[in-house]
Amino acid sequence: MKLATLKNGCRDGALVVVSRDLATAARADALVPTLQQALEQWDAVLPALQVLYAQLNDGVANGAFAFDPARCEAPLPRAYQWCDASAFLNHGMLMQTAFKAPQIPDTDTIPLMYQGGSDDFIGPCDDVTLPDEAQQIDFEGEFGVILGEVAMGVTPEQAEASIRLLVQINDVSLRSMAPREMRSGFGFFQAKPSSSFAPVAVTPDELGPAWRDGRVHLPLRVEWNGEWFGHPNGREMNFSFPQLIAHAAATRRLRAGTILGSGTVSNAGGGAGSACITERRAIEMIRDGQPSTGFMRFGDTVRMETRDLQDGPLFGAIEQRVVQARKPA
Amino acid sequence: MKLATLKNGCRDGALVVVSRDLATAARADALVPTLQQALEQWDAVLPALQVLYAQLNDGVANGAFAFDPARCEAPLPRAYQWCDASAFLNHGMLMQTAFKAPQIPDTDTIPLMYQGGSDDFIGPCDDVTLPDEAQQIDFEGEFGVILGEVAMGVTPEQAEASIRLLVQINDVSLRSMAPREMRSGFGFFQAKPSSSFAPVAVTPDELGPAWRDGRVHLPLRVEWNGEWFGHPNGREMNFSFPQLIAHAAATRRLRAGTILGSGTVSNAGGGAGSACITERRAIEMIRDGQPSTGFMRFGDTVRMETRDLQDGPLFGAIEQRVVQARKPA
Repeated sequence: MKLATLKNGCRDGALVVVSRDLATAARADALVPTLQQALEQWDAVLPALQVLYAQLNDGVANGAFAFDPARCEAPLPRAYQWCDASAFLNHGMLMQTAFKAPQIPDTDTIPLMYQGGSDDFIGPCDDVTLPDEAQQIDFEGEFGVILGEVAMGVTPEQAEASIRLLVQINDVSLRSMAPREMRSGFGFFQAKPSSSFAPVAVTPDELGPAWRDGRVHLPLRVEWNGEWFGHPNGREMNFSFPQLIAHAAATRRLRAGTILGSGTVSNAGGGAGSACITERRAIEMIRDGQPSTGFMRFGDTVRMETRDLQDGPLFGAIEQRVVQARKPA
Repeated sequence: MKLATLKNGCRDGALVVVSRDLATAARADALVPTLQQALEQWDAVLPALQVLYAQLNDGVANGAFAFDPARCEAPLPRAYQWCDASAFLNHGMLMQTAFKAPQIPDTDTIPLMYQGGSDDFIGPCDDVTLPDEAQQIDFEGEFGVILGEVAMGVTPEQAEASIRLLVQINDVSLRSMAPREMRSGFGFFQAKPSSSFAPVAVTPDELGPAWRDGRVHLPLRVEWNGEWFGHPNGREMNFSFPQLIAHAAATRRLRAGTILGSGTVSNAGGGAGSACITERRAIEMIRDGQPSTGFMRFGDTVRMETRDLQDGPLFGAIEQRVVQARKPA
């Protein structure tokens, strides 16, 4: 099943069901107004949403209309929790090598994860508004899961059943702020402004065999200003999503609607390119002694799309511009 | 004005107005169902809430009932954002000295702040449920602000007007997890399980002259198992709340309902005691070469209360027990 949230002037938008080919959609308001509410009563609303999904795919849904990603919010325009891991160790290894940073201990056995801000997510075609190019504006292509209720202390095996939806994320990052925030020990804050999401959240079965081992076995295709930047595959994730959930729930329960991200998708070998600029720069530093690629400029665009095993649309595309914020009056 | 949230079987509870002396309360549902919704339409709902508050204080409110903190959720049982600073530099200095940790650069000019989990706050009299005493269970007494909308890039002067409510917080902490999470650079995650809140959120005018310079000039009285532990005063905060808001909003806007904490209240000199165990242990380590105070055990209680300048009740008290979580089936 595929779900999206349409802009409607309210903060949580209006839930719609989207056809498998992303051509049409139908309002689900009458069943449940918002995705957050659907997640809180998943078992109760799922059957009716699935009926609507089947009708859409069969071309017989009442009130179906053309699906327009530009009218979408993030699937959850705001959430009560956003946890982001760094589950592709290849990325961390490249960063440590390039910046001659000390090895972070135990990263092969304990996932790296930070708590992110979740009050103001950005729609798939909306501008990313930031104050200053000098802060080294970067994108990060990620996969994520949206969860139901998770009990404190779940095992990875128990955690898998809490995965309700898969999403695709641009974890916007400001690289100039990161080193100081990391050294402080308090972690990323100003370095991680609002993230954006592809328009459509999908149930794991939509991926067919490309969802297995708790990982998305598909390439995430990233274009910067219309040019190929990378297509790393989610299968190389060193921790599975269930393992990441168990880590997040070790000392607290996670309430329905929690979003958990993989961290930037990264593949060994280099042939797949990268899903963020800082990783390409790290590769350049290791190879050439210095980076040659700059960061994003105001007016730049980024496009991120993952297609399914039949090369059909899956989450839809993030396609957005970076623009400068105006100073508040 | 004083506001609280009663348990009603729904996740966001029911908004009530509470009398100044915390003796009575009246349901505000008919005006606005939840505190989050009130924060989103503050200017529209404030006048009617204030009328109800005046009626309560005059003993003429329709349907007034005895106020019972044990029936309360946290004022926001869940929020879209929880940012926690470490704005009392005395605390950080003691920790660095005791643990011979390297000085964190620029902490006197740039606030330390981490992003916390906000999906599952704990009510003032509810148990704090945690998996393992060996994780070094600690409390942290803090003050906090709940905000309206904040634009990206506000100055501290502009930020002050966004402060809607003041709150008192127990930022529950697991000290054994913190050093590794700090060294990783990704910051606190497992070390910061769900926080709890005193029952009543108050508008700043309720503090009279004790709210000035963007700080709470009142002692936060902490008792552990019924014995005095500390009463440090909020006036020694090295960054004001408006300065902390400006820091948090440097690279993103903050949406209505954001909660921002001061970090553990800490006073120089030692006479006021501490608001967290780890700070007392740090003082012991500096003085005696080793700590003599242990961490919390299951069954222990903590009580935190701040009273107003006339020694009247203000936020009400946090009064809760720490209990062991059951393993999920």
